[in-house]
Amino acid sequence: MSFSEQVKARTGEVETIIEKYLPPVSGYQKTVLEAMNYSVNVGGKRIRPMMMLEVNRLMGQESPCLYPFMAAIEMIHTYSLVHDDLPAMDNDEYRRGKKTTHVVYGEAMAILAGDALLNYAYETAVKAFEAAENETQFKQTAKALQVLAMKAGIFGMVGGQTADVEAEDKGIEATEELLMYIHKNKTAALIEAAMMVGAILGGATEEAVSAIEKCAYNIGIAFQIQDDILDVTGTLEELGKPIGSDEKNHKVTYVTMHGLEESKARVEELSKEAIEILKGFPNRNEFLENLVEQMIYRTK
Amino acid sequence: MSFSEQVKARTGEVETIIEKYLPPVSGYQKTVLEAMNYSVNVGGKRIRPMMMLEVNRLMGQESPCLYPFMAAIEMIHTYSLVHDDLPAMDNDEYRRGKKTTHVVYGEAMAILAGDALLNYAYETAVKAFEAAENETQFKQTAKALQVLAMKAGIFGMVGGQTADVEAEDKGIEATEELLMYIHKNKTAALIEAAMMVGAILGGATEEAVSAIEKCAYNIGIAFQIQDDILDVTGTLEELGKPIGSDEKNHKVTYVTMHGLEESKARVEELSKEAIEILKGFPNRNEFLENLVEQMIYRTK
Repeated sequence: MSFSEQVKARTGEVETIIEKYLPPVSGYQKTVLEAMNYSVNVGGKRIRPMMMLEVNRLMGQESPCLYPFMAAIEMIHTYSLVHDDLPAMDNDEYRRGKKTTHVVYGEAMAILAGDALLNYAYETAVKAFEAAENETQFKQTAKALQVLAMKAGIFGMVGGQTADVEAEDKGIEATEELLMYIHKNKTAALIEAAMMVGAILGGATEEAVSAIEKCAYNIGIAFQIQDDILDVTGTLEELGKPIGSDEKNHKVTYVTMHGLEESKARVEELSKEAIEILKGFPNRNEFLENLVEQMIYRTK
Repeated sequence: MSFSEQVKARTGEVETIIEKYLPPVSGYQKTVLEAMNYSVNVGGKRIRPMMMLEVNRLMGQESPCLYPFMAAIEMIHTYSLVHDDLPAMDNDEYRRGKKTTHVVYGEAMAILAGDALLNYAYETAVKAFEAAENETQFKQTAKALQVLAMKAGIFGMVGGQTADVEAEDKGIEATEELLMYIHKNKTAALIEAAMMVGAILGGATEEAVSAIEKCAYNIGIAFQIQDDILDVTGTLEELGKPIGSDEKNHKVTYVTMHGLEESKARVEELSKEAIEILKGFPNRNEFLENLVEQMIYRTK
């Protein structure tokens, strides 16, 4: 099987798991349930749950507690997009070629669908306690919940999002420190959560979890810089969004700050280090290594 | 000490506990942290955490895992108000005589502060695992998390909120069934969560938790009907909001459906049953009984 066939097969596998945890659409709250499912089904590459699964495999075992967390992290990722797209935030009408949630369901319902997805993420993740087969797995679930909540919140994703929104609203020109804060939290934090949860539920030592966190940080930052590179070099067709939009918006990015060549070199460096960390574990997971490379060196 | 002095003292006690779990305001995400704390500090009577604490005491023991949950439920209650007040929702500029979060911090920051509070509620609640002194308390924490997430989400508060928003937006005249669905979920669900978590962490049997759930349901519904009664009979000064606003908005309520007398009788019946349930436990908690009476028979 070629790598792209493998990705397709595993995306299907991940989609099936997520699907299983989506709430049934019925009752008086039907509309919000529809809006939640619409938002999740708009697609995306399911990168976070896929990485969670693959890191779990890297640790040499697949935990029965893993699936609820895979669904949960995709719900958290989705809620953040639904709220980001709102008129008061980025005011985006399309995402991945499809109408955004507030365009289809109205603004009030999009706010509620985001809230519902975030809450349902935790409602789903706690189902892992029921799946735990012993005390060890029960405790791993509690630890994984802590990491997920921390990385998704004000000391993680929401923190990064806030700094980003504020810098833009107030026309603050980002310093390198602020820019890295935003990237670390807005982009890397949820990748860190995904990979760390995979590791924790795989029984990783604290040291191993830290190594995975570092690896995920590198991937997140490289992913973000690559995004900024693509904004300059990509084609409209490949990206599905206008090119050069950062420049047009006078947005400070790693690329506007350091230039294309230095940015590409930084992506290379971060990516190499990330792969090295993965190769340092006793079990190899070549699919995961390839996935990381493809994630970073994507052309869209 | 008079009952109102007792309430004051215990409100102070609850405030101190909540305060302890609020995040420090610093860093690049400072604004959202400020907005979160502002929203929590706008006040409110801290009824949900207070009931959680008192039910825990009713069970004869105060759990070391309780405090994080007390803070968490107040954060969930607060986020729901912040999002409810948004222009796309109820568009309220004042709450309890103070400017709402989006008026002070802008709409984008209010959306983020709500998201941050909801997420931080879970981040805070999971701290209870660290407070657990033994396996039993560890398991009670997991169970309490499940109940909290369920009652706060689409099969609880968010579900009720959705049905309410939708009925209003689409001009649907509520049937009694829809009205009770909204009250049960929008109002009662979080009171159920508060009291059930208090019971679970107090080591209550499943049967006792069910009794507490029923008791909380009664309190929630009675509280809501009383709200509708006050809308008709209260004075502006007492309520801090325009009286007769439901009628003016042609809003269907229990009172417009059944009339004042029948509504008052229903409040009486629900409240009596709730108090009976509380009296059925081996330990009496007279403060809790008085609190329930006062909550229901408030004049503002």
